[in-house]
Amino acid sequence: MNEVQPSRPSARSDEAFARIKAAVGEKGWTSDPAEMAPRLKDERGLWQGRAAMLVRPASTAEVAAVVGICNAHGIPIVPQGGNTGLVGGSVPDMQFNGIVLAMGRMNRIRAVDPVNNTITVEAGCILAAIQQAAAEQNRLFPLSLGAEGTCQIGGNLSTNAGGTAVLRYGNMRELMLGLEVVLPNGEIWDGLRGLRKDNTGYALRHLFVGAEGTLGIITAAVLKLFPLPRDRQTAFAAVPTPEAAVALLNRLQDSTGEAVTGYELIGRLPLDMVLRNIAGTGDPFGARPFPQYVLIELSGQGAEGTLRAPFEETLAAAQADGVVLDAVFAASTAQARAFWKLRDSINEAQKPEGASIKHDVAVPVSRVAEFIARATKAAEAALAGVRVVAFGHVGDGNIHFNLTQPLQGWTREKYLGEWERMQRIVHDLVMEMNGSFSAEHGIGRLKMGELVRYRPPVELAMMKTLKAALDPKGIMNPGRVV
Amino acid sequence: MNEVQPSRPSARSDEAFARIKAAVGEKGWTSDPAEMAPRLKDERGLWQGRAAMLVRPASTAEVAAVVGICNAHGIPIVPQGGNTGLVGGSVPDMQFNGIVLAMGRMNRIRAVDPVNNTITVEAGCILAAIQQAAAEQNRLFPLSLGAEGTCQIGGNLSTNAGGTAVLRYGNMRELMLGLEVVLPNGEIWDGLRGLRKDNTGYALRHLFVGAEGTLGIITAAVLKLFPLPRDRQTAFAAVPTPEAAVALLNRLQDSTGEAVTGYELIGRLPLDMVLRNIAGTGDPFGARPFPQYVLIELSGQGAEGTLRAPFEETLAAAQADGVVLDAVFAASTAQARAFWKLRDSINEAQKPEGASIKHDVAVPVSRVAEFIARATKAAEAALAGVRVVAFGHVGDGNIHFNLTQPLQGWTREKYLGEWERMQRIVHDLVMEMNGSFSAEHGIGRLKMGELVRYRPPVELAMMKTLKAALDPKGIMNPGRVV
Repeated sequence: MNEVQPSRPSARSDEAFARIKAAVGEKGWTSDPAEMAPRLKDERGLWQGRAAMLVRPASTAEVAAVVGICNAHGIPIVPQGGNTGLVGGSVPDMQFNGIVLAMGRMNRIRAVDPVNNTITVEAGCILAAIQQAAAEQNRLFPLSLGAEGTCQIGGNLSTNAGGTAVLRYGNMRELMLGLEVVLPNGEIWDGLRGLRKDNTGYALRHLFVGAEGTLGIITAAVLKLFPLPRDRQTAFAAVPTPEAAVALLNRLQDSTGEAVTGYELIGRLPLDMVLRNIAGTGDPFGARPFPQYVLIELSGQGAEGTLRAPFEETLAAAQADGVVLDAVFAASTAQARAFWKLRDSINEAQKPEGASIKHDVAVPVSRVAEFIARATKAAEAALAGVRVVAFGHVGDGNIHFNLTQPLQGWTREKYLGEWERMQRIVHDLVMEMNGSFSAEHGIGRLKMGELVRYRPPVELAMMKTLKAALDPKGIMNPGRVV
Repeated sequence: MNEVQPSRPSARSDEAFARIKAAVGEKGWTSDPAEMAPRLKDERGLWQGRAAMLVRPASTAEVAAVVGICNAHGIPIVPQGGNTGLVGGSVPDMQFNGIVLAMGRMNRIRAVDPVNNTITVEAGCILAAIQQAAAEQNRLFPLSLGAEGTCQIGGNLSTNAGGTAVLRYGNMRELMLGLEVVLPNGEIWDGLRGLRKDNTGYALRHLFVGAEGTLGIITAAVLKLFPLPRDRQTAFAAVPTPEAAVALLNRLQDSTGEAVTGYELIGRLPLDMVLRNIAGTGDPFGARPFPQYVLIELSGQGAEGTLRAPFEETLAAAQADGVVLDAVFAASTAQARAFWKLRDSINEAQKPEGASIKHDVAVPVSRVAEFIARATKAAEAALAGVRVVAFGHVGDGNIHFNLTQPLQGWTREKYLGEWERMQRIVHDLVMEMNGSFSAEHGIGRLKMGELVRYRPPVELAMMKTLKAALDPKGIMNPGRVV
């Protein structure tokens, strides 16, 4: 276990720390290095930090008390949910001498209202527990992502999490109706309204979603629920090009509308890596290779099988037009899971292939194919033999554009030394195409340089103005985002 | 014509006004009382104001130039779109000595991207023109409301417009992906990104939506489009109670999901008023009266008629359970229009019945029935003989709860003198139920008192902090919202 000694706060802070301990009680804090260790680094081991204390409040009132004390004494706070983020937003750095505020004890589901289609949850609720609570009421909470078994909804809100269902249900932001927030001055803002329509002043709640804990601490939220789909049809289709993948998406949306709930592009190279490196996977088309694939999921409220006919008709018409080369329907839930495993294993499958330089980018859906073509060409020209692993949520324009090291002639270290150069090529192109250099992962500390590089000064100035106005002492997750 | 003489700016401002005139050119301004008159009052004649000048910029650069001059000289600005708002947000008051900035000349549709499902429009575009431009590309822009032939999208954005399709497609806020805004200091913020995923800092665009022009001037926007529905089924159903209306909504959503695109509750009294006062209307059930009605519209991507069977099955099952008393399907587009006319004529039909005290409120959908029952009882107890006209977008919890004067014993003036007392009863109840006292109309100047009364100090303080941070000189639509 990587044990870092707690940072030593200044003597001036002793009184403040004593007050914090009193506010949260014995169960609510620790400075034991072993207990703190997993909270001071990220899962992938990219960042390691320290803190004076780990604080685990059990209620909104306790969060407010702690933040109020920190505000009075100028003690910085790193809020933390499941700590599953990929950009270092929830990990303190080695100079940090404040507290990590872990929200996991605030994990009550406060209410489920199946008629209003809302659920009210505390920030420390695990995403999967919310999905489960919704399902028990025959409702869907659609946010779904790899870390759902450990990530917390407060973190999902603070990073505006995406995932595979954005195409149909939107990002975390669109799934949120109201928030309860402890502001940087320790005041509680109760904005827990579960209304579809409410035009009474500025949309304060949207300030906190995606702010990565820099403007306040989300303690609870009212989230949207949806009817639980009864019919789900999954297919794996081979297409000639990314252009064809986008054209097929438009055809499916035109014929089935919002039934398209999953639409994931997979290049041949990532599929090869999965088949080679992940046990229990097989090519849905046997030995026949195709240049590109899409994993398609349709779901809806009709009786089981309702969507099958329009789905098949659309794919058949697309095949007749050369937009689709071949397609396999999942004949069972097990087969649908096997298709999804091909998609979900890509990150894992890249690991044995060597180091990868990764990009989480988005462009308008109409330019996905152009982006992949141009970025691939530019990357291959810049680094001979680089292997382009492009895949992802093509339905919402979000491509994970990963570059795996060449098969020969490169060490891992030497290859990762090319990160900045390759990232510049990819992100410059993305920005030229009016896209995003961080589609779903956020800024954290990893992408602060990119934010400053690519966002116009007027936009950066507005963010700094907001930060200064709402957190004048700068105690909330300092050094992140702004 | 009601002609108000332009207000006389201070001599100090002469240079500033000269610079504004130069910035926008001859076509870009007027101080002619006759030309200014319609811009200085609202359609209903509730508010009358004055201004030194009406400025009509033709481009974002002109808006930026004008705002920059106003900022330098402390000249206040009232931004104005189609001036169709219902709360006085776009009308100056009689003390105003700044400029009205009318956006109507900025009415270009900059781009339509049917593959990305986006349209990029300038703020002065008429809503109906945007719907039309989308339809020409076989796409739907779903925002739909009574004023769509004259209201401008900049006003729709600034007031977060609602309408009849919110249930399925969301408010204006949810239909917006990116904005171009001229900030109070005259700088242009280009946030015109058409991305479904973009987590790169604070969600600045959401600050301006619903801010009623108090934080900056929206000059252009990227909006979401949807596939144009091919199948549309409309029915008029009689139900015993508002509870039954909500129960039927849940059944329909459960059986057809997002196909429910319209769901409007109509009480017997408003229907009676329509039948009595609006030419060319008829009761869909002939002479048989029922206590409550819902106008239901289902639409989707399937072939014409696809939705008819599940719609009929759900209504039949509901009828067997007593949730529905009777139902009539529209056999033609003309009949569907006739059903919608019953709904859309309610406001007009109230006028010959005397004065009405109106409320635009929302509660959680699960509490709509409770709200209507309790509010009706309370209103009738407070004012004997008052006629409760409750109707509206029950699918999203938004009820127009209007109180028409008793048939006998009240003059119009005496009745309207009860506005404050009756409003207090209704709004107190709404707030007790965690609802909204302005579901879709906004704050403007009409509801500023309610905002201060009902919102907690911490929320009002945050709004003031944001206003002061982004518009430190207070030149943007002064005296509105905050």
